[in-house]
Amino acid sequence: MSHDHSTYRRIVLANRPHGEPTLQDFRLEAVPVPVPADGQLLLRTLYLSLDPYMRNLMDEAGTSYASAVPVGAPMVGGTVSRVEVSKHPDFRAGDLVLGSSGWQEYALADAQELTPLGDLAQPSLALSGLGMPAFTAYVGLLDIGAPKPGETVVVAAATGAVGATVGQIAKLKGARVVGIAGGADKCAYAVSELGFDACLDRRDPRLAEQLAAACPDGIDVYFENVGGAVFDAVLPLLNIGARVPVCGFIAHYNDKASAGPDRLPAATAAILQKRIRMQGFIILDHYATRFDAFRRDMGAWIADGSVKVREDVVTGLEHAPEAFIGLLQGRNFGKLVIRIAHD
Amino acid sequence: MSHDHSTYRRIVLANRPHGEPTLQDFRLEAVPVPVPADGQLLLRTLYLSLDPYMRNLMDEAGTSYASAVPVGAPMVGGTVSRVEVSKHPDFRAGDLVLGSSGWQEYALADAQELTPLGDLAQPSLALSGLGMPAFTAYVGLLDIGAPKPGETVVVAAATGAVGATVGQIAKLKGARVVGIAGGADKCAYAVSELGFDACLDRRDPRLAEQLAAACPDGIDVYFENVGGAVFDAVLPLLNIGARVPVCGFIAHYNDKASAGPDRLPAATAAILQKRIRMQGFIILDHYATRFDAFRRDMGAWIADGSVKVREDVVTGLEHAPEAFIGLLQGRNFGKLVIRIAHD
Repeated sequence: MSHDHSTYRRIVLANRPHGEPTLQDFRLEAVPVPVPADGQLLLRTLYLSLDPYMRNLMDEAGTSYASAVPVGAPMVGGTVSRVEVSKHPDFRAGDLVLGSSGWQEYALADAQELTPLGDLAQPSLALSGLGMPAFTAYVGLLDIGAPKPGETVVVAAATGAVGATVGQIAKLKGARVVGIAGGADKCAYAVSELGFDACLDRRDPRLAEQLAAACPDGIDVYFENVGGAVFDAVLPLLNIGARVPVCGFIAHYNDKASAGPDRLPAATAAILQKRIRMQGFIILDHYATRFDAFRRDMGAWIADGSVKVREDVVTGLEHAPEAFIGLLQGRNFGKLVIRIAHD
Repeated sequence: MSHDHSTYRRIVLANRPHGEPTLQDFRLEAVPVPVPADGQLLLRTLYLSLDPYMRNLMDEAGTSYASAVPVGAPMVGGTVSRVEVSKHPDFRAGDLVLGSSGWQEYALADAQELTPLGDLAQPSLALSGLGMPAFTAYVGLLDIGAPKPGETVVVAAATGAVGATVGQIAKLKGARVVGIAGGADKCAYAVSELGFDACLDRRDPRLAEQLAAACPDGIDVYFENVGGAVFDAVLPLLNIGARVPVCGFIAHYNDKASAGPDRLPAATAAILQKRIRMQGFIILDHYATRFDAFRRDMGAWIADGSVKVREDVVTGLEHAPEAFIGLLQGRNFGKLVIRIAHD
């Protein structure tokens, strides 16, 4: 892991994956530390956020909100960094900033791409409880899901960065919350630590039956972040007027074209018969209008302990590919963050 | 067709269809004309509305908003009738009323189930341009689709009762309107008579390509009433922020469990990436809040010629099964209405 200080390490996309990514799809390389031009900054990465959306950016098509990572280019991602060299008057060396340096130890940035973090005591929070995943939960649940007191909210990946926040905010709003998570330890955590009313193991072959039992009044809000078998178990339980904010569907990221049966007609039938509103959203659209409210509310909820944030911190950039593959399989427990350098 | 006046004819569900209904699934029978009790009315049916939703009520499961028709019971349906005998102070013999007598020449009704129609010059309009299908178009397009001037609206079954109204209202709101219909004559009518900007033949194997060419700025509102191949052609053209009101999916009514490939992952991906709002609605929910506005607006639009209503009138109750089977195949041209007795 030793390397001289005139070079830095980064991880690039080596190959476009077919289905599940493998370690061979990534390559660790050392390149010279760049020199910032006037107006630019050189950043040293402290924390890198790993999130499921990155899988989509490994495919040639990319997404509607971000182009594909070119083969040979660094993997992208949100980061917390220290300013190492500033050639911009608004920043000084040592400042803590939120940016998008990607899977790299160093990166150049323009000032307008950065958010100053002041003296945030736990800098990784800017990628977890106060960052994009929690903001995704906040907007999707409150603005689209809009749970009323006494309604039932279901969320999968219940101990993940998004799901844990969805469930805890829903509890604060008076809803009954049923989580779905991978394994008994995560389920126990969701109930005992996060305050969910129930949490079911997604690997249980009787999931559909157990979900029905855990939702005796049906489901009013299903926060969709996984798709697949969970969606199938949820669909028959949705109540008339249910809302389904769609923020992801990790079950299909590795395999978008699946064999039959065709599940679309039954889904459309349910949407119609139950007057369901299913609505996709991309969190990038909402920073301008909702981020201030989110930071205010979440800051208060985290400070008073009503929302708990669990991070799964892996140390060392070189472990990012393995950790990312594990994330797509649900092996993380809490918000996955790579610690790249000491604060 | 002759029968004495102490009996009347009705059509009952003889068998639950497997897939497409056949004539053998219906039975014409003669039963005694009933006598109204105090507070009730005896109605003589003038017009019966035939609508795709009836197919769902032939299945054992029924729908969320109406139970299945029991085998041996009369088929249900909206009707315009004359009051033959009134034992309720609010109605007199000869009054024209909107009700739900079903596929029958006579029926008993309670006063609260009926809407007086006054002296409506063309009584069948209460089932077509001023009735449920047009109201479905009005609510779905304006309240869920909410097209803005210059946006592109796509609707299938473009000369049908719902589609024709969707397209004409969308034009009144300043949208570009592209219809899809079965056959050249219907397409020509949609453009020349209804004022659509374009109309494509759903049977053309190059439908997807032609739809792309007809929607150079993408699709902002897709009014879903058919499903199937039309949905597949629309999906890749939907713009960011598109709205998809779902009022039906006639392509799947006869066959809800279809073979692969599974189209749901791609649909979910589009909903997410394009921040699409897909929302089902059942028109029965909206009478209390929106019907007055609809009647006022549509009454004016029909009166001044800005919305045209085409009815496909079939005479004789005994032809209802054949006409209904044709409706599910798209053989009607305009709102299908059975004339059962002279006004």
